[in-house]
Amino acid sequence: MNGTPLTLTPLRKVTVVRVGRTAQTGPEDVAAAEEPLDVRLQGQSFAIIMRTPGDDRALAAGFLYSERVVRNADDIGAVEHCRHPDQSKAHHVVNVFLRGNAAEEAVRHLDQRRRVVANSSCGVCGRTSIEDLRSDIPPLTAGLRVDAAVISALPDALRERQATFEETGGLHGAGLFDSSGAFVASAEDVGRHNAVDKVIGGMLLQDRLPLPDSILMVSGRVSFEIVQKAWLAGVPVLAAVSAPTSLAIDLAREAGITLIGFVRNGGFNIYAHEVRIVGV
Amino acid sequence: MNGTPLTLTPLRKVTVVRVGRTAQTGPEDVAAAEEPLDVRLQGQSFAIIMRTPGDDRALAAGFLYSERVVRNADDIGAVEHCRHPDQSKAHHVVNVFLRGNAAEEAVRHLDQRRRVVANSSCGVCGRTSIEDLRSDIPPLTAGLRVDAAVISALPDALRERQATFEETGGLHGAGLFDSSGAFVASAEDVGRHNAVDKVIGGMLLQDRLPLPDSILMVSGRVSFEIVQKAWLAGVPVLAAVSAPTSLAIDLAREAGITLIGFVRNGGFNIYAHEVRIVGV
Repeated sequence: MNGTPLTLTPLRKVTVVRVGRTAQTGPEDVAAAEEPLDVRLQGQSFAIIMRTPGDDRALAAGFLYSERVVRNADDIGAVEHCRHPDQSKAHHVVNVFLRGNAAEEAVRHLDQRRRVVANSSCGVCGRTSIEDLRSDIPPLTAGLRVDAAVISALPDALRERQATFEETGGLHGAGLFDSSGAFVASAEDVGRHNAVDKVIGGMLLQDRLPLPDSILMVSGRVSFEIVQKAWLAGVPVLAAVSAPTSLAIDLAREAGITLIGFVRNGGFNIYAHEVRIVGV
Repeated sequence: MNGTPLTLTPLRKVTVVRVGRTAQTGPEDVAAAEEPLDVRLQGQSFAIIMRTPGDDRALAAGFLYSERVVRNADDIGAVEHCRHPDQSKAHHVVNVFLRGNAAEEAVRHLDQRRRVVANSSCGVCGRTSIEDLRSDIPPLTAGLRVDAAVISALPDALRERQATFEETGGLHGAGLFDSSGAFVASAEDVGRHNAVDKVIGGMLLQDRLPLPDSILMVSGRVSFEIVQKAWLAGVPVLAAVSAPTSLAIDLAREAGITLIGFVRNGGFNIYAHEVRIVGV
């Protein structure tokens, strides 16, 4: 890192030259920290994730859950930061040790990733690979009902938990709430997907998956992958401050997920499975 | 895709239930399209990119440039959509055929990616892999000077080109301008990185890299990877509507890139190499 110390907190002080900002003249500002996390599986590097430090163990667990390397809490023997004596480096490595069959499957999984890259041919025109992106789990049928007023209140409830975002404007947030709107968990990260992985990974480490009475609220837009993560975690209601993509809508309809976008100014749009929202 | 036709345009009509929005009562809305693109190298699947259809050839070229599989326009023999008779599928596959040594190196590159995953051990605590994320090219020394008023005008100039964003609020934009603020190229995508890859890939296909007299303006935040892409393309000034991350700032300082954030309301913050901005 050429002498720049690795950051261990979600914020870092930076010097800044302000132009046309008479109200703020200080030469110091804070930026959302972004550092690479090396996720190791059975001691081997599995992925490098650019992330905001904090909740690293939950992030590693949630990432491996989304990648379907880990299916449930029982698969995990240990999730721990590297014990290397140089802590400034060790904090950017998380070792995950799987148990039993999951450990063997992890090795196969690595081989499979390789095979997917190598074997697709133009004859199938991407179909095999593209279908690989989808879940093979059944649609969610959770019968929870959520009051429209609960949905409208979620952005403020999430923002209250997002201390860093307020300071830097640079972080995505994800929050888990129950069907009455009560706060369950939240996380923030420079990466939209990471924030969701941290929240879901934290619940996984507590063996609290699936989450049939839950609402996942995200601060930005909703892409395909966010819906996929909600599906895998069994979260039946997904809401966002901004827009969903077309494929996010398709997948939510297929997954039995109530998908809500543009939650702002007291209103919102429902794109899929509106039956769970009452008092509309 | 279970009967849902693949989308070939950046927008798709969707049905929506509006709650608390008396002003907009129509049951139809448009969403930013998101579909997987299979980038094939010498006929083999190299990566699946979730992207907004449009500028697919530029995206494939820019992506491979960022991955350093392609070093310049001469490396590229052809970049073309798949010719499979089923056009709804073929539009989501781009075949890239490399020439000469680049073709051989591409195969080695695939092997290398595999080796990086397999060989890191906890002894180096991620250092090797993390250093792999950085560029080995020299810092940019381009001597261009840009008036502060040019920077302040960029968000509006970019927004004028972003027809889809206005309609859906769901797309990131990236625009290339010269040092006088004149428009050169732009692209939009659900993925922040994709929008940049499309712009840079388009210039690559026209053999117009590097870009020493250019400013790259992006609609959202600036992460490490965006700075890396600007560096590789030789773009010396990078500006964003929102915040940079800490690692983006570190890398810009190292890369000789002028990094500007929070370009809004007539002002902005400079985080690195402010010497290129005049009239402050």
